[in-house]
Amino acid sequence: MNLSPESLARMIDHTVLKPETKRGKIKQLCDEALAYGFGAVCINPVHVEYAAGLLEGTDVKVCCVVGFPLGATLPEVKATEARHAVRLGADEIDMVMNIGAMRDGDRGLVKRDMEGVVAAADGRPVKVILETGLLVDDEKREACEIAMEAGARYVKTSTGFGPMGATPYDVRLMREVVGDRMGVKAAGGIRTFADALRLIDAGADRLGTSSGVAIVEGYKWAKYSDSWMKPVRPCWLCPSRHASLAKQPKEVYLWYKQRCITCPHRDENIFND
Amino acid sequence: MNLSPESLARMIDHTVLKPETKRGKIKQLCDEALAYGFGAVCINPVHVEYAAGLLEGTDVKVCCVVGFPLGATLPEVKATEARHAVRLGADEIDMVMNIGAMRDGDRGLVKRDMEGVVAAADGRPVKVILETGLLVDDEKREACEIAMEAGARYVKTSTGFGPMGATPYDVRLMREVVGDRMGVKAAGGIRTFADALRLIDAGADRLGTSSGVAIVEGYKWAKYSDSWMKPVRPCWLCPSRHASLAKQPKEVYLWYKQRCITCPHRDENIFND
Repeated sequence: MNLSPESLARMIDHTVLKPETKRGKIKQLCDEALAYGFGAVCINPVHVEYAAGLLEGTDVKVCCVVGFPLGATLPEVKATEARHAVRLGADEIDMVMNIGAMRDGDRGLVKRDMEGVVAAADGRPVKVILETGLLVDDEKREACEIAMEAGARYVKTSTGFGPMGATPYDVRLMREVVGDRMGVKAAGGIRTFADALRLIDAGADRLGTSSGVAIVEGYKWAKYSDSWMKPVRPCWLCPSRHASLAKQPKEVYLWYKQRCITCPHRDENIFND
Repeated sequence: MNLSPESLARMIDHTVLKPETKRGKIKQLCDEALAYGFGAVCINPVHVEYAAGLLEGTDVKVCCVVGFPLGATLPEVKATEARHAVRLGADEIDMVMNIGAMRDGDRGLVKRDMEGVVAAADGRPVKVILETGLLVDDEKREACEIAMEAGARYVKTSTGFGPMGATPYDVRLMREVVGDRMGVKAAGGIRTFADALRLIDAGADRLGTSSGVAIVEGYKWAKYSDSWMKPVRPCWLCPSRHASLAKQPKEVYLWYKQRCITCPHRDENIFND
């Protein structure tokens, strides 16, 4: 992998999505994005106008979330939200797909939902958040296909508010489906340079994280030691490790746990009960 | 308190707000609401039309969340969402206020946000969710005042997705501000009959919970024993107990912890480090 600190920084969507975020925090986010050369800031709609003003004339894009983080609102509402975000200066839209409809097999609604946002984004890139932790593999694959048909530019793993974050496993699966026709954005729980590198290696070309500064600083230190390159147990990176009956629907939880039984790494798994 | 199982059930908004919710779960929710005589079902916008069809001609109201659960979208988007929800059959709207703007002291934006939803609801009751766990007491009081000025019908404690659920402390504080001019809905973490009773005793007249069946069934059993009436340590019910640096902004966390220092119950507090 040929990756400079600069090109790593360009892949990062510097992210703050907490509901309690104050103006000062958005200012800091934009300042850091400029100082570190991040590709974008990723924020809630209510902060788009302010951030777009701060970043006008710079290379840093404003990325706005839509239908976030549940994705359980109406297609018309997501489209309206995207339209307003664009009007206020958003360069990119990260929408959450209708997860319940996907699980119900209602392809039509899932696609219509995405198409409305793609149209409202008016040529700007749309990333579709699948929330992989709530889906089984076949649903993830199908969601990628629908997003591609609907004209989205990226598929994205997670919101950061769901049951699990980005895993190399899911990124690889999504990249297999979309090939080079779409981007793959990994998001959720990406905290270190090693996390970032593993996800890029698995096929991610964008990273959504609030730890962008630590990740880029980590790159600078990484050359002094290669302890961070040590291979980790496969189970540490497996989504099944994060399966949780408290956070996932029972059938999804069981599907993840079921994978362990036939997994060649099963004997190394120190997380199983 | 003069409370029958029937009047308790009427106070309950039977709630399912998970993003992965399938149609079948909404059907079950509506069936239970009819069987137990709950006041309403509380659901995401994407399920309003289906639930309204199932509940047509019954006493059970359809309550739809708006700007949920972050409240960090634009006033126009929340108003549009409320308008569509009403068009599809919603009888009540539970909106999340703009929490960041409240913390920034931007009263104008907070109020405009609420007013837009109240207008879109077109006479139907609007409940404003404060997400008390992200606010200090003065902010909670001010939010109640703004909600009253904006024409909302209820203030509501929490989303169930935030750092803490409903506490008798917050319900009492909110009731003190709104008196009998507004309702107070407690929501988040209400699982048992004892939880419900304590919140009603503190001033709540609506309860948002996904444990409505257990709560009403608990009432039926309660007469056989009064062990559930045992007083609990005050600290068990105190919001400061749930303070968490991982989930709250630092200044809010410190504010909650600070209260412990001067609290008369301090010596009973087994949760302090």
